Amino acid sequence: MSFIHDDFLIKSQAGRELYHEFAENEPILDYHNHLPPKDIAEDRQFGSIFDIWLEGDHYKWRAMRCNGVPEELITGRANAKEKFMAWARTVPHTLRNPLYHWTHLELKRYFGIDTLLSEATAESIWEETKAALARPEMSARNLLRSQKVKALCTTDDPADPLTWQEKCAADGFEIGVYPTFRPDKSYAVHQPSAWNAWCEKLAAVSNVDVKNYSALLEALSRRHDAFHAIGGRLSDHGLNSAHARPVSDSEAGRIFAKARGGTAATAEEMDNFASNIMLHIGRLNAAKGWTMQLHLGPLRNNNSRLARQIGADVGCDSIGDYLQAENLSRFLDTLDSENALPKTVLYNVNPAHNYVFGTMAGNFADGSMPGKVQFGSGWWFLDQKEGMEWQINALSNLGLLSRFIGMLTDSRSFMSFPRHEYFRRTLCNLVGTDMDNGELPKDTALVGSMIRNICYTNAKNYLGLKVAD
Amino acid sequence: MSFIHDDFLIKSQAGRELYHEFAENEPILDYHNHLPPKDIAEDRQFGSIFDIWLEGDHYKWRAMRCNGVPEELITGRANAKEKFMAWARTVPHTLRNPLYHWTHLELKRYFGIDTLLSEATAESIWEETKAALARPEMSARNLLRSQKVKALCTTDDPADPLTWQEKCAADGFEIGVYPTFRPDKSYAVHQPSAWNAWCEKLAAVSNVDVKNYSALLEALSRRHDAFHAIGGRLSDHGLNSAHARPVSDSEAGRIFAKARGGTAATAEEMDNFASNIMLHIGRLNAAKGWTMQLHLGPLRNNNSRLARQIGADVGCDSIGDYLQAENLSRFLDTLDSENALPKTVLYNVNPAHNYVFGTMAGNFADGSMPGKVQFGSGWWFLDQKEGMEWQINALSNLGLLSRFIGMLTDSRSFMSFPRHEYFRRTLCNLVGTDMDNGELPKDTALVGSMIRNICYTNAKNYLGLKVAD
Amino acid sequence: MSFIHDDFLIKSQAGRELYHEFAENEPILDYHNHLPPKDIAEDRQFGSIFDIWLEGDHYKWRAMRCNGVPEELITGRANAKEKFMAWARTVPHTLRNPLYHWTHLELKRYFGIDTLLSEATAESIWEETKAALARPEMSARNLLRSQKVKALCTTDDPADPLTWQEKCAADGFEIGVYPTFRPDKSYAVHQPSAWNAWCEKLAAVSNVDVKNYSALLEALSRRHDAFHAIGGRLSDHGLNSAHARPVSDSEAGRIFAKARGGTAATAEEMDNFASNIMLHIGRLNAAKGWTMQLHLGPLRNNNSRLARQIGADVGCDSIGDYLQAENLSRFLDTLDSENALPKTVLYNVNPAHNYVFGTMAGNFADGSMPGKVQFGSGWWFLDQKEGMEWQINALSNLGLLSRFIGMLTDSRSFMSFPRHEYFRRTLCNLVGTDMDNGELPKDTALVGSMIRNICYTNAKNYLGLKVAD
Repeated sequence: MSFIHDDFLIKSQAGRELYHEFAENEPILDYHNHLPPKDIAEDRQFGSIFDIWLEGDHYKWRAMRCNGVPEELITGRANAKEKFMAWARTVPHTLRNPLYHWTHLELKRYFGIDTLLSEATAESIWEETKAALARPEMSARNLLRSQKVKALCTTDDPADPLTWQEKCAADGFEIGVYPTFRPDKSYAVHQPSAWNAWCEKLAAVSNVDVKNYSALLEALSRRHDAFHAIGGRLSDHGLNSAHARPVSDSEAGRIFAKARGGTAATAEEMDNFASNIMLHIGRLNAAKGWTMQLHLGPLRNNNSRLARQIGADVGCDSIGDYLQAENLSRFLDTLDSENALPKTVLYNVNPAHNYVFGTMAGNFADGSMPGKVQFGSGWWFLDQKEGMEWQINALSNLGLLSRFIGMLTDSRSFMSFPRHEYFRRTLCNLVGTDMDNGELPKDTALVGSMIRNICYTNAKNYLGLKVAD
Repeated sequence: MSFIHDDFLIKSQAGRELYHEFAENEPILDYHNHLPPKDIAEDRQFGSIFDIWLEGDHYKWRAMRCNGVPEELITGRANAKEKFMAWARTVPHTLRNPLYHWTHLELKRYFGIDTLLSEATAESIWEETKAALARPEMSARNLLRSQKVKALCTTDDPADPLTWQEKCAADGFEIGVYPTFRPDKSYAVHQPSAWNAWCEKLAAVSNVDVKNYSALLEALSRRHDAFHAIGGRLSDHGLNSAHARPVSDSEAGRIFAKARGGTAATAEEMDNFASNIMLHIGRLNAAKGWTMQLHLGPLRNNNSRLARQIGADVGCDSIGDYLQAENLSRFLDTLDSENALPKTVLYNVNPAHNYVFGTMAGNFADGSMPGKVQFGSGWWFLDQKEGMEWQINALSNLGLLSRFIGMLTDSRSFMSFPRHEYFRRTLCNLVGTDMDNGELPKDTALVGSMIRNICYTNAKNYLGLKVAD
Repeated sequence: MSFIHDDFLIKSQAGRELYHEFAENEPILDYHNHLPPKDIAEDRQFGSIFDIWLEGDHYKWRAMRCNGVPEELITGRANAKEKFMAWARTVPHTLRNPLYHWTHLELKRYFGIDTLLSEATAESIWEETKAALARPEMSARNLLRSQKVKALCTTDDPADPLTWQEKCAADGFEIGVYPTFRPDKSYAVHQPSAWNAWCEKLAAVSNVDVKNYSALLEALSRRHDAFHAIGGRLSDHGLNSAHARPVSDSEAGRIFAKARGGTAATAEEMDNFASNIMLHIGRLNAAKGWTMQLHLGPLRNNNSRLARQIGADVGCDSIGDYLQAENLSRFLDTLDSENALPKTVLYNVNPAHNYVFGTMAGNFADGSMPGKVQFGSGWWFLDQKEGMEWQINALSNLGLLSRFIGMLTDSRSFMSFPRHEYFRRTLCNLVGTDMDNGELPKDTALVGSMIRNICYTNAKNYLGLKVAD
């Protein structure tokens, strides 16, 4: 039997029925990823499996470093094939790591390859995938079509002109390609040089002279409008922990002026300023019926030597142990108190916080809609079977699994859409096991309807993104 | 087969034997709950399933809000039947939440109902339960009898006159109804208005003029005596984290005077003052052979809009991530150092603290009795299968499961006693699985005796509550 | 069937094959323990099972206290047999605690005893073990031989003269007995009286007058050389959390002078000073190709009454909840930035930190060798099946299990070597279960080779300790 077979990951009898009848054929609404919209707009054709698979994947880079592969063969000057070979040699050392599953699931789903990747099989897989990728059906847009993607949301800075999303729409591309509003740079007043450059960029794209605090808010509002106009319905925020120390407009103005003048804000000032900006975005989201995603907790760019050498976000991040509960509560409560709490998704990167986040979500349900505040899908390091099971179990025990908007890829690669399959198999196995054990009623219609909703329908109804039927 | 059947939750072969032979028929000693003693004293008869089931259950309220039910139908002006129907519509959306299990376990054990609750079955269940509740065997006292409750401990403020517990005793009610001493309000010097009102109430019931710090201690001591006289043998304390910064009596006196004069104590002063009060209660407990329960870690009343609208403790609480270890260690050590550490039960609400609490308990065993400091049963959000299993496993790995005093309901409803059944099934399944796997000796007498002790005997011996044989 | 049988702990079919073919017969490289080297040097013969089993085992002491055994029978004046009998009475109360497994595994492997220990069997087991221990094959050295130990690393202070390790080498003992450099006392400047005594001891053994900060560094360097000369290749550090606030040499000199003059350093000064010392040791380790072990997170000696009565490290320690990520990151990054990060093993005592540590290790892989920064084996309270499984799963999901250097005993008893068997069974069961479930390829050679590497080969290659072939 192939390693990746029809019932891969699904030991439960009922789970197999749930998967094949209610999950497998659902379309994908990938509401959070990091794909380059340019590749979609230009319908990129990939030169080799390196280009589509290794070029931007810091998960693989990290595993290669742990396996003793020198940087030359990871992000360095070696050529594409040499780097692929280094990855192939690493794969057999990734047993029990999700990369081992993803690798073979992706080779199977995109290329029909059933062989296990290793040094011995690498050469023929290199050739086979090279030939396949040259075919038109393997272009960026066709890959999205073959994966039954209905819509996807990229991750974009407010200062980004959204050229590529506009081109997709103008082309009449039937799959929605929508931007996500990610304003992390807007409050980086502790790094005035980068922040001032960003302010200029924002000024240019928004036609607002960002000369004071209220002008900054106005520029952000205009960009929020622009994102909305092209179909954006989500914001996204990457934070150590929630900013929840807002200050008066005049104090925020003072901090603005200080940083705009080139002086770094203190850590406390940055926290204050960021709190104000976050409330502003929260209000914009609430007013337009958007969803706010809070990604909380990583400790980023730990390795300063590698950061100096090759830059940020290259696979040297780890899970932080920041305290989360009080700040997050205060931030959400501040918005809720003024009836400006938008639909919100809370993601934690530290699994020790699952129960904190799972209960926090329940505090701000207001009866206006099901699942208004979501405990989000297993994120980053938790985006694997153990992490997904923990998140699904925590959500089940502390809230309403049936109202869950489910999975997203969070990926930089066009080959990552089988993460949805991975999630669906894990979900069906878990829920099916409960049916096998009599912990859920043996009522496939009842349980299957919940599964189908989690795979697609809940996200569609909740997010309000425009999707073709 | 019924959803709730004889071996519900017990997959293990040995576990079924353990449950049916050693656990199922044990009586209940419910040493921590929140039942209104008035209902028992007056032998309340319930008008409908709403009155006995939904009236005070913030777990159900929270789930309804998450399901998009408006407050009107939860705590608002809708009538009892409308609220029950809203709950019935919510139930099928609670699959995998403990409420789904509890709901059907309670319908079965109290009413013999095997039907799954949903909108379709709600009408007939409403009628059937209404008729049943009208019968005398469904009065508060008869429900306790039918559940084989030997004694139960309510949760009471020191300023409470204990009228209802006295009435139960005076009536010769054979089931012990004992108060638990919960002095959380005694050190709320940071909220002087409420605190001063409470001081007056305490003064009235204790016949002590609470005019200075030592008078407050004296009044608390007198109430401790009164609780003891009516059969109370436990105190209970709800805290973010342990208070362990005691100050001199004169400094405590200064803080007392400040708050008594209407000025709010600072956070630090409150912590100091609470530390002193907690040590005082610890000493009283030790002197009388009582048990001290510490419930640590929640972040309460997060939703200030709902708090303003309907009050505190309405289902808007979450799990906190306060640091616990150092304060808890210092508090216990301070009492132990003066030979005044009472029997103590440590409960954590954050499962990430299970191993911290499980090991903390072991530090203060002093050889005077088995299991002197207990790692308490899964609490609040952890009072479900996953949470119970984690607690039982942590206790097993870090301490002596055999000395565990087991389960309590922590509930506001007369229909919650099957939580003990739920716990016992979970316990037997877990321990039985170890026997099936050869991780415990296949010696049913040895293991079964441990099970029986955990269900009832350990709590009886440990707590020293008076129970009829 | 015996409680300890051939497939004890291994339910998985594939796991049994993995264990018996790839794990069971591998030798042991016990790279971290607390055995007294004197016992090995003098080839101690043990008078009774008390001497070899209970004399120094604070795990057992702690369990006895929790079982209500008075201190007299634990560390007090009772005789060896009385203490053994008290332990025997405790054993049946340890069901589900790892002590229950270890106890019977050790009785079986060292004495061939299959009987379960209890009061009823204690007398005959006392006699049987007494007779066995009198035989020459039960001497300290012969026990190491029979357990197939290739080398072991004791834990030693820099001021220790290493007499016993030298004697083992001089005797030509074929099993490597190597010291581990544990300089925790070198920066205890907050306890100047003990610290000054230690400085004098260090001065004597190193022939360096420890009169200023640089002399202290020099003395530590000389001792590092001496440890190296006798075969030491690891340092070890027991910390609440990493020290990562280094100061200038002149400021460190000021703190040195203050403490050397008898004045206690403040907590902040101690943290600064310790940071400098830790960097110094890190550089020494890197220069000589050593491995640095960081043991982080316990809260020690909680019970001050027992500490006064019988001393430190007597079983009154618990798991702390110190924040770990930022300090640990900064410490490792500081060394890495100057190309002075040695091979490092990170051990956490709080399982809530597994994912923090598992990801931190991956940040500092530099491609120079496989698995340069290791996420270490389950430690102390985590050294049991549940804890091991969590660590193995975390490592698998976040890093490369295949590069793991595996188990160590961390023990004070010559009877603890079956901890390696316990770990190997747990590992094979876990990995074999994945094979049974199709989550790993059913390729026994591929997976078995990983198992064998984790049991012995990885540690051998990674640590560079001299071992006889």
